[in-house]
Amino acid sequence: MPVKTIEWIDGRIRIIDQTQLPGKLAYLDIRDIKVLGEAIQKLRIRGAPAIGIAGAMGVALAAQVYRGSERKGLIRNVKESIKFLRMTRPTAVNLFWALDRMEKVLDSVADEPVDEIQERLLQEAMTILEEDRQVCRRMGHHGASLIPEEATVLTHCNAGGLATADYGTALGVIYAAVEMGKRVKVYVDETRPLLQGSRLSAWELIQSGIDVTVICDSAAGFLMGQGRIDCILVGADRIAANGDVANKIGTYTLAVLAEKHDVPFYVVAPISTFDFILASGDKIPIEERSGEEVVQGFGLKTGPEGVDVYNPAFDLTPHDFVTAFVTEKGVLHPPYEESLLFIQPKVV
Amino acid sequence: MPVKTIEWIDGRIRIIDQTQLPGKLAYLDIRDIKVLGEAIQKLRIRGAPAIGIAGAMGVALAAQVYRGSERKGLIRNVKESIKFLRMTRPTAVNLFWALDRMEKVLDSVADEPVDEIQERLLQEAMTILEEDRQVCRRMGHHGASLIPEEATVLTHCNAGGLATADYGTALGVIYAAVEMGKRVKVYVDETRPLLQGSRLSAWELIQSGIDVTVICDSAAGFLMGQGRIDCILVGADRIAANGDVANKIGTYTLAVLAEKHDVPFYVVAPISTFDFILASGDKIPIEERSGEEVVQGFGLKTGPEGVDVYNPAFDLTPHDFVTAFVTEKGVLHPPYEESLLFIQPKVV
Repeated sequence: MPVKTIEWIDGRIRIIDQTQLPGKLAYLDIRDIKVLGEAIQKLRIRGAPAIGIAGAMGVALAAQVYRGSERKGLIRNVKESIKFLRMTRPTAVNLFWALDRMEKVLDSVADEPVDEIQERLLQEAMTILEEDRQVCRRMGHHGASLIPEEATVLTHCNAGGLATADYGTALGVIYAAVEMGKRVKVYVDETRPLLQGSRLSAWELIQSGIDVTVICDSAAGFLMGQGRIDCILVGADRIAANGDVANKIGTYTLAVLAEKHDVPFYVVAPISTFDFILASGDKIPIEERSGEEVVQGFGLKTGPEGVDVYNPAFDLTPHDFVTAFVTEKGVLHPPYEESLLFIQPKVV
Repeated sequence: MPVKTIEWIDGRIRIIDQTQLPGKLAYLDIRDIKVLGEAIQKLRIRGAPAIGIAGAMGVALAAQVYRGSERKGLIRNVKESIKFLRMTRPTAVNLFWALDRMEKVLDSVADEPVDEIQERLLQEAMTILEEDRQVCRRMGHHGASLIPEEATVLTHCNAGGLATADYGTALGVIYAAVEMGKRVKVYVDETRPLLQGSRLSAWELIQSGIDVTVICDSAAGFLMGQGRIDCILVGADRIAANGDVANKIGTYTLAVLAEKHDVPFYVVAPISTFDFILASGDKIPIEERSGEEVVQGFGLKTGPEGVDVYNPAFDLTPHDFVTAFVTEKGVLHPPYEESLLFIQPKVV
């Protein structure tokens, strides 16, 4: 990826404001935790791994901007920021995973001087960023083995560089396959209502010179019915212990279509996206967003005044629809009650 | 329906300009066959039965505007107009059905005086309009028997009053069920790219006081997975002799989802939508429309500059996905090689 989705520069968090793509590549420098919270809620930065990193950097930022010398005040401020960031979005688990990890570091250095605490939190955030880079590369490497030498793949939403610190989860597999010399043609669902497919995935694939064609979400079944799709690659926002997947609304529909047409359905996600606390997907909270995203998208009125809208941002795909999970530790096949043990932390 | 989608007033064809809905209820008075062609191509009037009627009225209009006294000149002009109207849209068969019917009348009165030919063509167009009204009511009546006393139904695109001369095909069944005292809640897919669901179906259902909720096309699977949909009602643009259905892109996806979740999938269409010349659906021409409809919808740029787009306006649903067809002659169940004989004209 030629662009940096999120980075830390001189005490600020710099993100690409993804609500302005593809029209404009605009950066936002954030020095205030409230502004970061708004950026996450409004999807200026989005994608499960990326909002994990944003959360971690937010904690580091909350520490950095503390101007006092008392560690108690610092710790109180940082804890409040963690609480605030926790409320921004409910579904992607990487955010909570990153905040928990930052809080653990905070607790472990709670007796150190203020500048030491600040330094350690920043280090941890940078480690999370760096780890995500490496994890992306490893997922790409493992996943590329699943892609035929000449392949037409379908993806949904944006599980690419704009959703991570590097070249993405689902799109990372495509980038890696292309780097290996495979010829890959990509169809991308536009992904209503916020069009992350046509606005973001198409944009970043074009930046990387990859053959991409946008379709309406509802055209995916027609393409599969004609035998034109070799496999489906999607990311995930949270995966339960049994392998049930919460991901962008529309993912479940693709999974049903894939099963019907014998098209392999791959979910590409780092281990930080797995939530081993939840036994199954029905426990994952599904974020419901404003109906205005649907009938007043981008300022245009496309539904009658006052019409009811149901706008779930995610859906659930039961694990038996998933052909394989691609993680940084390798490709995991069913039965998932066995294979997911391989990546489960020893103590939960 | 409180609105008139298409009517003949004082030598003009008056249509609702559906591209302006739901923001504005604007009428367009058409006195020129070229303007009518543009209106059909640009979807100012759309829906298989409605464009059949528009085609028939167009032929009548072409005769009416002829100012000469020679029947040869009149017939040549009308035949040219029929040829022109035939080119406007390829998939819905009702247009060809109506144009064929008008041409047959023209041939049968070719020896009459000019004013008699003009009169007979106008009569025939008005008969087609009136027949469509009655056909809508009969389909509604037959289809309503399929709807439970309390039901949540899902529909796609607009197969309502705005697609016909009366209260529609799929939506007609809903209107009829509600008139019978059934409690019906409707989910309507917004129907990308041109949003006939959120712009048109939601609008006309609200006009009739029916409980309607808009969803993104990609949310239909999630709703069905939760068991929240009792049946699916769609219209059709063309149905082959074996029952394969061409309808708005996304219909096939709904059919696959319906099969997976044991949700009845009903296709509501007048006999004029059946094309008994075509043995199966793979022979139906599928209109591919401009990619700008997808990435430049309503003037807004939602895809990167120059991105490839694949924008088929329709898809094909094989007949084995269809639980039943609702026609003006009754409800037809499988096996369709038998039941469709019931509506097939004796001589094709």
